Amino acid sequence: MQQCTTKFTMKSNTEEFQWSETRVRVRYAETDQAGMVYHSNYLIWFEIGRVELCRDHGFNYRDMEIEADAYLPVTEARLRYRIPAKYDDVIVIRTRAADIRSRAITFLYEVRREADATLLAEGETQHIVMNRAGRARSFPTEYAEKLKARVAANQ
Amino acid sequence: MQQCTTKFTMKSNTEEFQWSETRVRVRYAETDQAGMVYHSNYLIWFEIGRVELCRDHGFNYRDMEIEADAYLPVTEARLRYRIPAKYDDVIVIRTRAADIRSRAITFLYEVRREADATLLAEGETQHIVMNRAGRARSFPTEYAEKLKARVAANQ
Amino acid sequence: MQQCTTKFTMKSNTEEFQWSETRVRVRYAETDQAGMVYHSNYLIWFEIGRVELCRDHGFNYRDMEIEADAYLPVTEARLRYRIPAKYDDVIVIRTRAADIRSRAITFLYEVRREADATLLAEGETQHIVMNRAGRARSFPTEYAEKLKARVAANQ
Amino acid sequence: MQQCTTKFTMKSNTEEFQWSETRVRVRYAETDQAGMVYHSNYLIWFEIGRVELCRDHGFNYRDMEIEADAYLPVTEARLRYRIPAKYDDVIVIRTRAADIRSRAITFLYEVRREADATLLAEGETQHIVMNRAGRARSFPTEYAEKLKARVAANQ
Repeated sequence: MQQCTTKFTMKSNTEEFQWSETRVRVRYAETDQAGMVYHSNYLIWFEIGRVELCRDHGFNYRDMEIEADAYLPVTEARLRYRIPAKYDDVIVIRTRAADIRSRAITFLYEVRREADATLLAEGETQHIVMNRAGRARSFPTEYAEKLKARVAANQ
Repeated sequence: MQQCTTKFTMKSNTEEFQWSETRVRVRYAETDQAGMVYHSNYLIWFEIGRVELCRDHGFNYRDMEIEADAYLPVTEARLRYRIPAKYDDVIVIRTRAADIRSRAITFLYEVRREADATLLAEGETQHIVMNRAGRARSFPTEYAEKLKARVAANQ
Repeated sequence: MQQCTTKFTMKSNTEEFQWSETRVRVRYAETDQAGMVYHSNYLIWFEIGRVELCRDHGFNYRDMEIEADAYLPVTEARLRYRIPAKYDDVIVIRTRAADIRSRAITFLYEVRREADATLLAEGETQHIVMNRAGRARSFPTEYAEKLKARVAANQ
Repeated sequence: MQQCTTKFTMKSNTEEFQWSETRVRVRYAETDQAGMVYHSNYLIWFEIGRVELCRDHGFNYRDMEIEADAYLPVTEARLRYRIPAKYDDVIVIRTRAADIRSRAITFLYEVRREADATLLAEGETQHIVMNRAGRARSFPTEYAEKLKARVAANQ
């Protein structure tokens, strides 16, 4: 039988990639009858987070798909839900790269309530690099370099 | 910094809860411009899987919320995406309980393409038991007992 | 200023296309904090309805896209919401073609609660025929003929 | 048989409610395999539009639900899709009230691409006022008055 173990350990990392931040407001459509944000929406917020991280580092994820035929399908996702987000809350999505390899990348996320910075959820997504036809390929160098570069501090 | 490690280990378990199966057909609305099912939809399929597992064991999740004021919010979710599901595919969602405690429960999932039984994705969700007001509570005994009971083989 | 007027008039039509029916069960993800199905989901149910109508008439909408490079983007949609659908309800989606032209098609829908056949919502979608590149084109003859054909009664 | 007729007529209205504007960026999750925004998402954008219109007029829709037990369920929706929205586009949602009655309200919408102001879609939603229990009620006076008031020009 399958068993999964997730360890959220604090790890010191001398080479740390920068956090990017972006904000969204919770939509009525994202709530469910329990009166909170339905849990699958956090994966969409993670998507927004990594797209904005790319934008902070100088490129559109959309253009990487079109111009470089490079897609970043998700291979693994882990989420820990701590405190529910609610309708009309402003949510801060914090994202950073954790591991950029030639053929794979990992992003880490924090989801916080803007009003009081409360940590609502956190998680991680792992991606491989593929072309439109579905074949694994390497991360286009120009985009990988942009992700690794340090940028001016952002909010 | 945070780091997550997921181990998908094969574990022999003498006390195994039964798998339930249910089917859904991929909706156009579930696809994205990469030509595959957008990854957050698999969490919705997991939801369908555990709701049908409850139904196979003799109760509606809906009624547990209404009658017993017991909700099962997700506290952790892990997903591994192996092969993309495509539009109009018939998907088999296999679900089983992995750990039923007095105040928490874990479900395991497999998502397979019905046509050839290919494993598309797998995962796990962990839940606590809460009432509508958001207070942790114990799993209502009658429902826990139903989940633990062995039922007639299902498809 | 723009003003829209919708008239739901009963009209006798000697050449009537057949209704198709299909069923879905309401997902928790489709509910909102008002305790009912969020209204945009009915457009997804309409999508399911017309896809199943195509299947009843002998073809997959998916194959029409792939093999004939014919897409049916929605140009207009109208919905009337009468009684809310609720979590875990089984919903009957009734669909029929109302107007099949060389370059456009209209579908009509009813959404009913299966338990007591209550009409929950109704609507209409209008579509043009386009190829993948976005150019208007005619409805592929083979598929149009299948839609117009009368088929064995279905549930 | 049912037949719907929608007339988009230009109508001069001496008492015009103000347009509000808000912006969203298209999410990958909102696209479909045809390479455009899946049509049901426009109803979610309309929701965002009317919520921001309320905010421009001095109140949160959320607070009206909680404090005044007044909900605005959709009774009718009409959408005309002209040009598809694409991934990563910035979308301007323009919303205005068209008819504010004691027990019902109508909103009109335009969805434009911010880059060049192209009109992508337009529509209308009609709402009644209900309490949480599902009983029709009147629009809370304080909120209706705020909606009718003219506010400082907004973008």
